[in-house]
Amino acid sequence: MIVTCVNVYVKEEYIDDFIEATIENHKNSILEPGNMRFDVLQQKDDRKRFTLYEAYESPEAAAEHKMTEHYLKWRRTVADWMAQPREGIPHDVIAPLERNQW
Amino acid sequence: MIVTCVNVYVKEEYIDDFIEATIENHKNSILEPGNMRFDVLQQKDDRKRFTLYEAYESPEAAAEHKMTEHYLKWRRTVADWMAQPREGIPHDVIAPLERNQW
Repeated sequence: MIVTCVNVYVKEEYIDDFIEATIENHKNSILEPGNMRFDVLQQKDDRKRFTLYEAYESPEAAAEHKMTEHYLKWRRTVADWMAQPREGIPHDVIAPLERNQW
Repeated sequence: MIVTCVNVYVKEEYIDDFIEATIENHKNSILEPGNMRFDVLQQKDDRKRFTLYEAYESPEAAAEHKMTEHYLKWRRTVADWMAQPREGIPHDVIAPLERNQW
């Protein structure tokens, strides 16, 4: 299992567009066979900041996500809306370790 | 719904102790009625850094977590093991919005 926390900082005028494009990416990503979660969060005290919580059952499944059509479309779509480059931080899972808890 | 991402930086010599105490906190926290997730993650490229992913169905439920015996015990236990203060970042949920997806 691998969980990547992606920190996103969006230009203020593109917040709504970013949310729309990222919900579409979420809907497609959770259908990938190796996906466990793909949560989209907006920071309470700064609406320009988002966290994507991308959980995959293996590093290979996480890598395959980046080759999907929906990811590539999302990446292209949001490129000009970033206020700074995204930062993805990969993690190992300590708990829960049961696959059915994801 | 509210998700707090807690960034933790542990002194190297206490990594194993921190993992043990935090797994215990995880096991108790997921039993709280308002809890949706309580994931414990260790950063791949720096084993001293952890992320706690604490999802609750309401801000009230998240606040109640901080009054539970297991949270207070965990807080006391890990206090001296921190390399720097923990940082909790609260988020609103954009997706998934269905309660049963948590």
